[in-house]
Amino acid sequence: METQVQELQFALDTFYFLVSGALVMWMAAGFAMLEAGLVRAKNTTEILTKNISLFAIACTMFMICGYQLMYSGNGFGFFLSNLADADAGLGYSNAADFFFQVVFVATAMSIVSGAVAERMKLWAFLLFAVVMCGFIYPMEGSWTWGGEAIIGSFQIKGKPEGAGVDFQDFAGSGIVHMAGAAAALAGVLILGPRKGKYNSNGSVNAIPGANLPLATLGTFILWMGWFGFNGGSQLVISTKGDAGAVAMIFLNTNAAAAGGLIGALMVARIMFGKADLTMALNGALAGLVAITAGPDTPSALVATIIGLVGGVIVVFSIVGLDKLKIDDPVGAISVHGVVGLFGLLVVPLTNDSASFGMQILGALVIFVWVFATSLIAWFVIKAVIGVRVSEEEEFNGVDISECGMEAYPEFSSGAK
Amino acid sequence: METQVQELQFALDTFYFLVSGALVMWMAAGFAMLEAGLVRAKNTTEILTKNISLFAIACTMFMICGYQLMYSGNGFGFFLSNLADADAGLGYSNAADFFFQVVFVATAMSIVSGAVAERMKLWAFLLFAVVMCGFIYPMEGSWTWGGEAIIGSFQIKGKPEGAGVDFQDFAGSGIVHMAGAAAALAGVLILGPRKGKYNSNGSVNAIPGANLPLATLGTFILWMGWFGFNGGSQLVISTKGDAGAVAMIFLNTNAAAAGGLIGALMVARIMFGKADLTMALNGALAGLVAITAGPDTPSALVATIIGLVGGVIVVFSIVGLDKLKIDDPVGAISVHGVVGLFGLLVVPLTNDSASFGMQILGALVIFVWVFATSLIAWFVIKAVIGVRVSEEEEFNGVDISECGMEAYPEFSSGAK
Amino acid sequence: METQVQELQFALDTFYFLVSGALVMWMAAGFAMLEAGLVRAKNTTEILTKNISLFAIACTMFMICGYQLMYSGNGFGFFLSNLADADAGLGYSNAADFFFQVVFVATAMSIVSGAVAERMKLWAFLLFAVVMCGFIYPMEGSWTWGGEAIIGSFQIKGKPEGAGVDFQDFAGSGIVHMAGAAAALAGVLILGPRKGKYNSNGSVNAIPGANLPLATLGTFILWMGWFGFNGGSQLVISTKGDAGAVAMIFLNTNAAAAGGLIGALMVARIMFGKADLTMALNGALAGLVAITAGPDTPSALVATIIGLVGGVIVVFSIVGLDKLKIDDPVGAISVHGVVGLFGLLVVPLTNDSASFGMQILGALVIFVWVFATSLIAWFVIKAVIGVRVSEEEEFNGVDISECGMEAYPEFSSGAK
Repeated sequence: METQVQELQFALDTFYFLVSGALVMWMAAGFAMLEAGLVRAKNTTEILTKNISLFAIACTMFMICGYQLMYSGNGFGFFLSNLADADAGLGYSNAADFFFQVVFVATAMSIVSGAVAERMKLWAFLLFAVVMCGFIYPMEGSWTWGGEAIIGSFQIKGKPEGAGVDFQDFAGSGIVHMAGAAAALAGVLILGPRKGKYNSNGSVNAIPGANLPLATLGTFILWMGWFGFNGGSQLVISTKGDAGAVAMIFLNTNAAAAGGLIGALMVARIMFGKADLTMALNGALAGLVAITAGPDTPSALVATIIGLVGGVIVVFSIVGLDKLKIDDPVGAISVHGVVGLFGLLVVPLTNDSASFGMQILGALVIFVWVFATSLIAWFVIKAVIGVRVSEEEEFNGVDISECGMEAYPEFSSGAK
Repeated sequence: METQVQELQFALDTFYFLVSGALVMWMAAGFAMLEAGLVRAKNTTEILTKNISLFAIACTMFMICGYQLMYSGNGFGFFLSNLADADAGLGYSNAADFFFQVVFVATAMSIVSGAVAERMKLWAFLLFAVVMCGFIYPMEGSWTWGGEAIIGSFQIKGKPEGAGVDFQDFAGSGIVHMAGAAAALAGVLILGPRKGKYNSNGSVNAIPGANLPLATLGTFILWMGWFGFNGGSQLVISTKGDAGAVAMIFLNTNAAAAGGLIGALMVARIMFGKADLTMALNGALAGLVAITAGPDTPSALVATIIGLVGGVIVVFSIVGLDKLKIDDPVGAISVHGVVGLFGLLVVPLTNDSASFGMQILGALVIFVWVFATSLIAWFVIKAVIGVRVSEEEEFNGVDISECGMEAYPEFSSGAK
Repeated sequence: METQVQELQFALDTFYFLVSGALVMWMAAGFAMLEAGLVRAKNTTEILTKNISLFAIACTMFMICGYQLMYSGNGFGFFLSNLADADAGLGYSNAADFFFQVVFVATAMSIVSGAVAERMKLWAFLLFAVVMCGFIYPMEGSWTWGGEAIIGSFQIKGKPEGAGVDFQDFAGSGIVHMAGAAAALAGVLILGPRKGKYNSNGSVNAIPGANLPLATLGTFILWMGWFGFNGGSQLVISTKGDAGAVAMIFLNTNAAAAGGLIGALMVARIMFGKADLTMALNGALAGLVAITAGPDTPSALVATIIGLVGGVIVVFSIVGLDKLKIDDPVGAISVHGVVGLFGLLVVPLTNDSASFGMQILGALVIFVWVFATSLIAWFVIKAVIGVRVSEEEEFNGVDISECGMEAYPEFSSGAK
């Protein structure tokens, strides 16, 4: 009967992991809807195509090489055999482990697609997805969650030399979200802003999204999926301690999203005089990103406040990036990058295993690696096939030039 | 090993509770999509803003004071400490308990937003959400699920004096749905109908919703989320009896929704000569509301019939409220209020622990309390900041006046 | 304590089944959104009404007679009593078994609605749903998953005479998907193509869908729901072997969807020169259908390839059916029928319990039965109430004639 009990633990932990993974997979739909709602009608088919295609590419590339780069211990060539009976001693199914990890890669990549929307060539983007999901993300993942050394014996997780603590990023404020934002920033810098976004006199033209119900739906999907993202990152649930931790993570994740929304809604009200829906949505997402580095240690009140501060930051960051003429149509760099960094830095306030020094070091390692390699990748892609559509294609919308079909052929008034 | 088995029970029950809670959270997206689909394009951004903001407010207010008012035994000030290791002897994690309860508050509040759509001031609504989620709902919740005395030793749950049975409302046909509808009714009475809805000669103008796929999606989301709403209300699943009960609840919940849809579709066909989609959607929701007070005791056939009767009632109720010039753009008062009451009254037919007398008493307590306090709250809000937008703002749409942005800037033909 | 452990197994397996069933129920929303996105605006309300109504009919008819025809051993008249304490020795709750099975019927029926879109009478369709869900599907289900004899002692599952192996269709590439497609094909042949689809000179007019974000959302929903569809078909998860199998099924289901999308995207790029979103969506669904007959036995790489081949096939099939003037507005016959057959035929490559002979035999049995009985049903319905709307109604859109309301009253430019 002892075996039966152990098998039950194995089964419950596997099931919990699979449910969590399915929720994270669902986040791909959330990003697709959010981004499709925030671009103009003429660029909607293309961003939908990018979002669902990048998910497929992420799953395939991470299977072929990414997972093995990131977790070299979990079996090279695992994708060549059926894993139903495999047992690497994780306490849950190996296949479930891959399934949970693979949907995280897609999340990181989804962040990029929104920032480069409305002017990038589709195939250039998908080519970048191959490199990001197969190499750039897995390498930084191996140094953090993988616990491997970066150069020589220098490492930030596992046994970092001379440090009593190590880099703490529970579910990936930095490893996933800031990483995605760093790749996005590199792409945006290579690409330049959309035509008509910034005037020569320094003023900024708002370019409203075509479908706000979609953007709101996307935010709700992401909010829901985040329970899997953060909740699943406890990895097991079958003991009382783990179950309590997972529950606290759910509670804090929800509280931080709520706080983030309230923070952004209030600040936008003060700054713009209205209840700005898109800021509120980005505020909720900012709250979620902010808590992701440490959803297990705060109280519910502190989680709410962390989220609230994240929501406040994101409004200022979106306004600030526009001042710098960094054109990010959906605010992804602010939500995932700026607030991702904030999420990392706030961990030591509630977690004794973290220190400001190690958090800054970890953030630097992730940012420098992802930004630099992404910049190289974007440069090579630009040189080989180009990254930006022609001015005429941009004016007419990338839906026609890249996908050959309109998203709303009967509705759009043809506003350009 | 005994400990291991108990820990497994604790873990499974906690996980089941968290999954159920995530499904109920998802219902917030369902209400947002349903309501956004049933209003006109010019009022869509505002209703989206209301829906996602009220969820954030509900989570925050219920954390700060609501949960403690409702379940005073579960630890005052719980939000000040991390609950990962807390154990109040519930058999599942304390944090999971809060997470499950908090999403119910948001459901009650979501019901209000649809009924007052297209003419209420956004900030007036959000202010009401603070009062509803922080005080009105928790008080009636404390008398019912909380089991506390209402006045002196008078109570309707727990040990009601002189009664062999007590008030039975398994998952909240009354405590959640009728309560939300009572608050909505108070708001609608204070607010008055939309301009152009009722003609002086007594005829009613249909004001069609702008986006029926959204409304249908919202209904599907609610249908799915209801499995968590009713299924999770068993509270535990780790014994054979509880597992069987939860399964029966899933089956009955689904059967009642199916019955409700069929009932409304048929009646609308007879009355209007067409397959009326919006009535069918409200029928499915009515079926769900009707079964919510007792999804555990009927057979599948009886559950289908309960749902079907709910679906029939909702069509007559929607038509009837229009006769009374009570303008509810999405039919929320009919679906959640009228059918919620029906759900309460039908419980004694299949549940020996219930009686008509106690069901009526409980319904009265809930309705009178929520309606009266809501009326006061709306009056105070009206006096202080006003509840209704100006005629011009209503004509141009509240999206511009309240949120400063259109939901579909490229599609809308500008129909007013 | 042994009892406690067994009860925990029972509880975990029941919970896993219920979660899986809820995910399959969610697929109904996926079909509704997919189909609503791929038809023209003027036919959207009707297809939404069909989709949500067929789900209600499927649940009710399968309860009244379908389940008992299909699994005669599981208790005739089960819907007349509460099953909370019932135990048929399945190792999980009886009610959970019904709940899981009933949502599969709805999936089969959902496949039909897309193929006959934009020209069929609504009530004719719903009448067919009654026959399909109450009789046609349950009969072929009884011969396959039910393990019963077809004629005399001739059977294809259980103990097929003279065969060392039997028909293998793990989660229903044939039993559910090809069956739905066979019924759809019969309907399309009776109905004929939409006006204006095929020109007398042999050329084909593309009729673009009105709302591609909806179609994409529908695909994501189906992708997510398929984890329940395939993952739940293992039936239990509480042992280590079962947990590993379920995890491998999740992994392979996801991998095949990714492969299918990539395959279709590539082939469409080569054939049409663009990144064709609708082909990519159908490719992902084709990958899912292809793996459904055997998601448990391949490696992740082989699953990806099976999906990829499915994605390639679907593009050629969609083009080929148009050559034959078989008008299927959403590609359902190709995705579920042609690729469903491919899924059946590919099982023997990775599963020793399967043979090509038995797979072909099983496919023939399912196709001939469903196609022939559907043809009869459609003919009878045509004779009694007619199946096709008038030319004028088709020109004006079935939303007005069948449902009396437009899906997007403020957006549609009135394009016919």
